[in-house]
Amino acid sequence: MAKKTLNVGMIGYGFMGRAHSNAYRKVSQFFDLDHAPVLKAVAARNSDKLEPFARNWGWESTETDWRRLVDRDDIDVIDICSPNNTHHEIALAAASRGKMVLCEKPLAIDVDEAVEMVEAVEAAGVANMVWFNYRRVPAISLARQMIDEGRLGRIFHYRSTYLQDWTISEDVPLGGPTLWRLEKEVAGAGVSGDLASHSIDTAIWLNGPIESVSGMTEIFVKERPVQGSPSERKAVEIDDVCTFMARFSNGSNGTFEATRYARGRKNKNSFEVNGEKGSLYFDLENMHQLQYFNHDDPSHIQGWRTIMVTAFEHPYMKNWWVPGCVIGYEHTFINALADFLKGLESGEGTHPSFREALATQKTQEAVLDSARNSEWMTVD
Amino acid sequence: MAKKTLNVGMIGYGFMGRAHSNAYRKVSQFFDLDHAPVLKAVAARNSDKLEPFARNWGWESTETDWRRLVDRDDIDVIDICSPNNTHHEIALAAASRGKMVLCEKPLAIDVDEAVEMVEAVEAAGVANMVWFNYRRVPAISLARQMIDEGRLGRIFHYRSTYLQDWTISEDVPLGGPTLWRLEKEVAGAGVSGDLASHSIDTAIWLNGPIESVSGMTEIFVKERPVQGSPSERKAVEIDDVCTFMARFSNGSNGTFEATRYARGRKNKNSFEVNGEKGSLYFDLENMHQLQYFNHDDPSHIQGWRTIMVTAFEHPYMKNWWVPGCVIGYEHTFINALADFLKGLESGEGTHPSFREALATQKTQEAVLDSARNSEWMTVD
Amino acid sequence: MAKKTLNVGMIGYGFMGRAHSNAYRKVSQFFDLDHAPVLKAVAARNSDKLEPFARNWGWESTETDWRRLVDRDDIDVIDICSPNNTHHEIALAAASRGKMVLCEKPLAIDVDEAVEMVEAVEAAGVANMVWFNYRRVPAISLARQMIDEGRLGRIFHYRSTYLQDWTISEDVPLGGPTLWRLEKEVAGAGVSGDLASHSIDTAIWLNGPIESVSGMTEIFVKERPVQGSPSERKAVEIDDVCTFMARFSNGSNGTFEATRYARGRKNKNSFEVNGEKGSLYFDLENMHQLQYFNHDDPSHIQGWRTIMVTAFEHPYMKNWWVPGCVIGYEHTFINALADFLKGLESGEGTHPSFREALATQKTQEAVLDSARNSEWMTVD
Amino acid sequence: MAKKTLNVGMIGYGFMGRAHSNAYRKVSQFFDLDHAPVLKAVAARNSDKLEPFARNWGWESTETDWRRLVDRDDIDVIDICSPNNTHHEIALAAASRGKMVLCEKPLAIDVDEAVEMVEAVEAAGVANMVWFNYRRVPAISLARQMIDEGRLGRIFHYRSTYLQDWTISEDVPLGGPTLWRLEKEVAGAGVSGDLASHSIDTAIWLNGPIESVSGMTEIFVKERPVQGSPSERKAVEIDDVCTFMARFSNGSNGTFEATRYARGRKNKNSFEVNGEKGSLYFDLENMHQLQYFNHDDPSHIQGWRTIMVTAFEHPYMKNWWVPGCVIGYEHTFINALADFLKGLESGEGTHPSFREALATQKTQEAVLDSARNSEWMTVD
Repeated sequence: MAKKTLNVGMIGYGFMGRAHSNAYRKVSQFFDLDHAPVLKAVAARNSDKLEPFARNWGWESTETDWRRLVDRDDIDVIDICSPNNTHHEIALAAASRGKMVLCEKPLAIDVDEAVEMVEAVEAAGVANMVWFNYRRVPAISLARQMIDEGRLGRIFHYRSTYLQDWTISEDVPLGGPTLWRLEKEVAGAGVSGDLASHSIDTAIWLNGPIESVSGMTEIFVKERPVQGSPSERKAVEIDDVCTFMARFSNGSNGTFEATRYARGRKNKNSFEVNGEKGSLYFDLENMHQLQYFNHDDPSHIQGWRTIMVTAFEHPYMKNWWVPGCVIGYEHTFINALADFLKGLESGEGTHPSFREALATQKTQEAVLDSARNSEWMTVD
Repeated sequence: MAKKTLNVGMIGYGFMGRAHSNAYRKVSQFFDLDHAPVLKAVAARNSDKLEPFARNWGWESTETDWRRLVDRDDIDVIDICSPNNTHHEIALAAASRGKMVLCEKPLAIDVDEAVEMVEAVEAAGVANMVWFNYRRVPAISLARQMIDEGRLGRIFHYRSTYLQDWTISEDVPLGGPTLWRLEKEVAGAGVSGDLASHSIDTAIWLNGPIESVSGMTEIFVKERPVQGSPSERKAVEIDDVCTFMARFSNGSNGTFEATRYARGRKNKNSFEVNGEKGSLYFDLENMHQLQYFNHDDPSHIQGWRTIMVTAFEHPYMKNWWVPGCVIGYEHTFINALADFLKGLESGEGTHPSFREALATQKTQEAVLDSARNSEWMTVD
Repeated sequence: MAKKTLNVGMIGYGFMGRAHSNAYRKVSQFFDLDHAPVLKAVAARNSDKLEPFARNWGWESTETDWRRLVDRDDIDVIDICSPNNTHHEIALAAASRGKMVLCEKPLAIDVDEAVEMVEAVEAAGVANMVWFNYRRVPAISLARQMIDEGRLGRIFHYRSTYLQDWTISEDVPLGGPTLWRLEKEVAGAGVSGDLASHSIDTAIWLNGPIESVSGMTEIFVKERPVQGSPSERKAVEIDDVCTFMARFSNGSNGTFEATRYARGRKNKNSFEVNGEKGSLYFDLENMHQLQYFNHDDPSHIQGWRTIMVTAFEHPYMKNWWVPGCVIGYEHTFINALADFLKGLESGEGTHPSFREALATQKTQEAVLDSARNSEWMTVD
Repeated sequence: MAKKTLNVGMIGYGFMGRAHSNAYRKVSQFFDLDHAPVLKAVAARNSDKLEPFARNWGWESTETDWRRLVDRDDIDVIDICSPNNTHHEIALAAASRGKMVLCEKPLAIDVDEAVEMVEAVEAAGVANMVWFNYRRVPAISLARQMIDEGRLGRIFHYRSTYLQDWTISEDVPLGGPTLWRLEKEVAGAGVSGDLASHSIDTAIWLNGPIESVSGMTEIFVKERPVQGSPSERKAVEIDDVCTFMARFSNGSNGTFEATRYARGRKNKNSFEVNGEKGSLYFDLENMHQLQYFNHDDPSHIQGWRTIMVTAFEHPYMKNWWVPGCVIGYEHTFINALADFLKGLESGEGTHPSFREALATQKTQEAVLDSARNSEWMTVD
């Protein structure tokens, strides 16, 4: 049972603020950790929305200016859940106050910002992590474990998609508290930052660095109404689609595609890795499953097997229920938080760190540059 | 946001105690209800295990005798999570004190006990519910909704399995805090009560009353070591397997099979309903999906479709995350709790009530009688 | 390349006549056999339909009376593709002339007929086989091979369905050249003979003899129009549904269900076998696949694997195309014919023989008796 | 029943020679056509192998020089099943003799050859077709039909893979009768010609012309033993992998990947088309299925449906067996041949014609050029 408290100050009350609040409230019941997070304070500008949010989730206090939150002495860790264009300033301020920093993905608007953020947290020596929560899907962690066990051998192919379909309608507006993801000023980029960043983080984690990319982007809906002012229409400037081919340092070839125009695909964050000895396939729409082909099986009984990743032997699962009982989306945040705390406690570091997320940001930026210039780009 | 508190007194700290505690802690954040459950007190005999459990989950107090819990004036609802052979006595005591009663399934050891429990809660006029939580799987609730919408037409077939594989090894012992499910004195019955009771509750909910059954049971492992005393071996007396054919009141035919000897099946609680106009298929191992065949589609594009039950339009899902983000096992308890509270608040009643669970108990008992006598049995 | 001819005389030109003609024409190109079938003569009463059929398939001659066919000296083997109520008389006549006899399933109208047919072919010492062609689906043959290899261990469960949906409409008539399957006088039985007989043959082949059964049958549509005389309606007397529970000699439990009222299921002839060490699942709707769960795999990578049964190592597949290229329904007849010819040539016998099919007929009859009497029946 | 004969002269006796021979023998039994193909003569250099091949399949005569075959007056159509580097010369000779020409894919070694071949058959006015047999998979033809019916609306994405795994081992040799596909001089190209050409033909057929491409190729195994001389090793010069991004004329984005290094994928020729109103998915490993998502369904019952493409309403299927009975790989050739003959008879032309195949060849060549130059290439 937890012995120390960890006072959390969170910025933002949107979808991610909800997912993180839930994680802070639950992690101590399910993981045996030295630290127990305390929901100390939550900050956002809109007090009318912030107060009921804070009450609902049990945050002890609120701030309407994130700077005050960062200044408070009773806060150990700053958790950034606000839009992408705020990450940089907040992270620098938090690091300069010696706070640990957790940041939602993507790390920053661009590589320049991201580099400064890495330098800031490293100079300050504060623990840091980016919420690439999908690493903590048990099936994806199992994929990593199986690769580490040598079950795939030499890798030939890495094949990734992140497909959704919620922006197809031309009536989906730009802006507003939840739709800033479609605005360039606020989001920085489109699916490249929102979806492909997840795909890239997972790819690098599983298959190592990406050396070069050739990208293609597209804007299918050129103009959208403005949230709160529907008669007004504004040009869409972010990428609706982000597709790229890649060469990894380990010699394998990669393909990536991220879009919100794949009718019928709701959250198809999938990858397939093909190695000499075996292959893996994962799809977030069936997040409790990992598919595996083992070429070492006797030849007449080889086949793609569906591992139901709910056994006690599987990553994270002994902390949850019993075999056969699935966990869901929210648990990836709780698992990530538990890993952060364990990393703190063991001294083994917290991952994915800002530095690790910088590699993803560089890849993402190279893809957009490549698409703009219609040429292959080396990553860094 | 909740206006009234509902003080909960729970008995038991096992697997179900954990699932229920989690539900009491979370329901208020996700559902807009008048009542907020308060984790007032938890009771169990073993104080050494009870205390850390209570601390971990935030129960305000503990009792080592459930009778004291039932007597406390500050308790509004008694939640029975203790082994099956304790349900009857506790429920009667709680009802006589005017407490609402929640009870884990199966309702009782046998029909006689169950009848008395129904009479007790109805005489006392207290709200009551049995935790047949799978009704609250969004996909199963959607199945019910689609049937109510008339999408299947006249029903011909209902086909149910509940398959697990964790008791195959002869080394799995009898007894102990978690393994009482294999002991006749404590569990009353084997898979008929543990697994088939879920199947029957779902079947009756979706397809109406069962009129007659022909059952077959089996004990594959005749003798097992005793938990805590491994050199000792004891005869297994509960049913390892419970299979039956059924005739429903609506004229359809049913097949049911429950077993813990289906190698590779971890929690395959499945059903298929075949109607004149359409069919449905569900499998708890992929609990976010409901399969549907619509005979009204143009003939060249008919097919079994997999509905990913994570959209805002789907039962319970607007209370959780966003489309494409799955929920898991634990959420069925939270959904059930929310329904109980809404039932209280709206005056529409709480379901499945003890009386509804009695129908399941009668069916279950008729199956065991039929298997014993090798003949068809009418259900009540 | 074939050295000897085998002159075939076939009776019937319906759906099975087509499937068999195709098999006779193709087997020599794909299998290296001593015998080459010759399409010598085909017999049927309706000359207007028979002649174009014979021309289309290259049958050298025709007969309008099967007795003349049986009497011809240039015929080596009689192949019975006519309705069920003709099998007995033809088989006896053919055997008495010393012809080999191939017979479509089910073997006979009832056990009495079947016994006489077995006695006739055995007394005459003529090769004989019943076309239970699904044994020759490569995936089912692979299942048998894997069971023989000991991959499943002690068997606990055998679970079978044969689901179709083509008789749901009340407008589907009785009678006529293709719809005799719905008439009791001609078909003898309903789905028990048409579908369940396949299920039983496969079950016995894979899991050994069935000792006792408890059956349930149903007639959902009580009356149908008569083919060719639509204003006339006639009572349906055959079983629309045939469900049964079974106990096998090896101690395992079985469930079987055959119906043509399972909306959306087109040819779901499925089985699952659960053993101590592993399990298998097959569904004819995906006939190129066999699913396998291996409990001997390391526990964290266990899962149901889908074996794509198209490799050279798989039964029959080296005779067909290359790995990854599927074969279909018609090939099961060609494989069965090749096995018949190899059985002849090797002296190892031809399977499933009439005697083997008799065991299926007895099981089928016990199921109908059980359903009629509402009691368990011992098979023979 | 057929009234006219069509005398076929085929060149080659390899895997394709086998598939085509089977098609010529079967098409008349299953399709009602005016023409009946006659297996008149087959040509190949190796007489020892040719003779038994011809006997097995019933070819009436043989030639050891294809030129003599082309010169024969009794031949109506020349069918080219010999390696890629022979297509051009044979096609030109055949056209100049006024023969119809059928040609295995890819049409030619390069675009220059292909252009001459198109000019030759068009100048001669002879019917011509390239065996892109996968168009004739019923599920793919159904996809085309559904697109023509307007079920997808505006197209956003086309996603294609063709994955196999048979060349992973470094011991797979170069050369020989079946392995010429790995030799540049004979095959012209690697997977781009062998696999991607199928993908491109299907893509253009379903989604219209491709305007520009950015390609990436790879050679994973740099050197291989020589067939028949295993101590000798030779550099591999063809592409092991061919990946590309594409822009279609209709504004949609495409991704394509062809490889023989995807462990566990045997014949995964898949495509997905995402449109505003619906999506389709196909995988040749389950060739009897087409998956479809219909956004016009009521929102709570939307889902990906699996159409089992075996109903009488489905393309080609009324010519085969009954609903629920699958056809296989070989039938795609028979369907293609039937379409060729119907095209001849109706005067509606034969497809895919040499001219249509030229578009595929140009795309394929642009991809290789793009990969070589690391830049986007416009297709023609």
